[in-house]
Amino acid sequence: MSRWEPNARERLQQAALDLFVERGYESTAVAEIAERAGLAKSTFFRHFRDKREVLFGGGELLGELFTTGVAQAPGDATPLAMVGAALEAVQAAFPAERRDWVRQRTAVVQANDELRERELLKAASLVEVLVRALRERGVAEPVARLAAALGYQAFPAALARWTEPGERREFAELARQELARLHAAVAKLG
Amino acid sequence: MSRWEPNARERLQQAALDLFVERGYESTAVAEIAERAGLAKSTFFRHFRDKREVLFGGGELLGELFTTGVAQAPGDATPLAMVGAALEAVQAAFPAERRDWVRQRTAVVQANDELRERELLKAASLVEVLVRALRERGVAEPVARLAAALGYQAFPAALARWTEPGERREFAELARQELARLHAAVAKLG
Repeated sequence: MSRWEPNARERLQQAALDLFVERGYESTAVAEIAERAGLAKSTFFRHFRDKREVLFGGGELLGELFTTGVAQAPGDATPLAMVGAALEAVQAAFPAERRDWVRQRTAVVQANDELRERELLKAASLVEVLVRALRERGVAEPVARLAAALGYQAFPAALARWTEPGERREFAELARQELARLHAAVAKLG
Repeated sequence: MSRWEPNARERLQQAALDLFVERGYESTAVAEIAERAGLAKSTFFRHFRDKREVLFGGGELLGELFTTGVAQAPGDATPLAMVGAALEAVQAAFPAERRDWVRQRTAVVQANDELRERELLKAASLVEVLVRALRERGVAEPVARLAAALGYQAFPAALARWTEPGERREFAELARQELARLHAAVAKLG
C-alpha cells in the first residue's frame, strides 16, 4: 500500500495476534494494534476494514486459490483429484513463516464464541466456492457437494497438523494425506 | 404448559409465521404474534424464549431424535445405516400437518441473512450431535464425521422435497432416497 511502511500488513497482523493472545480479542482496540506495530491507525484501516478483518481477511484469497486449483486440475481429473488440486493451490497462503501466526490465530478464534461462529460461516461460504468451481468443471450434484465437503474436512485437519509444534512438512503434503485418509474412510461408510 | 390454552404453542407458531410472511421477520413484534394468536404475551414467553425461538426452538428435538435413532440402529448397522436410522427417527418432528409450516419457515429463514446464519450454525451443531452419536456406537473418525456430513446433506434435501407442493410421501421415505442418492454419488468421487 505504501512504500514508507515496509511489511505494514504483516506487522499489523502480528501485533494484533500478540495483543489478542495477551489481552483477549474483545479487549483489544484497533488503536492499540497500530501502536504496537509502530504504525498509524489510518495505516491499519488502509489494510483492514475492521479488527475482525485481521483474522478473516484471508478468506477471499483462499476462495480464489481453491477456484484456481480446481480450474487448473488436469482434464481427466476425478472430482476428488480436483479437490486435491484446490488444496495444493491453497498452499500459497501458508508459507512456512506463517505457521506461528496461523497457530495463534486458531487459538484466538477458538477462544471466542463470536469468532467461532464467524469461522463456521466462512467455512460454509468456502464450501460453496468449491462446489461452484467443481460445477464449472462439469461435476454434477450431489457429487460436487460431496467432494467439496470432503475437501473442507481435509482442509482444517491438514491446517491443524501443519501448525503442530515441530511439524516441518509443507501444507500441501499434509493436505494430500488428509484427503487420502478421508478417501479411505469413504469405503467404510457401508 | 397450561390447560386453559389448548394448542397454544402451535397457535403461536402459526401466528408468528403468518406475520413473518406478511410483514417480514424484523418488523414483527412478539406482542403482535401473541395478539394474532389470541393469547397473552406472557403465554408466548412460557413457550418461547424470544422471537427467534419460534423458528429455531425445534433444534433440540432434532438433536434428540438423531441421537435416539443412531442409538437404536441394529447392532450390525453400517455407519451409513446408522445415519439412515437417525433420519427415520427425525420423521417424528415432521408429521404431515406440519408441511405448510415447515415450508413457510424455510422461506422466512432464507429471506433474512441473520436467520440464514443462525440456520448454518444450527446445522453445524446438529452435525456435531450426529458425530457424537456415531462415536458412541464405535464409529471412528473420520468415518463418523463423513457419515454425519452425508446425513446432513440428505436432511435438508429431503426436507425441501417433503415440502414441495403436492408432495404426499412421508419424510422418512424421501430421506432414504436422498441418502441412497448420496451413497451412489460416493462411488463417483474418484
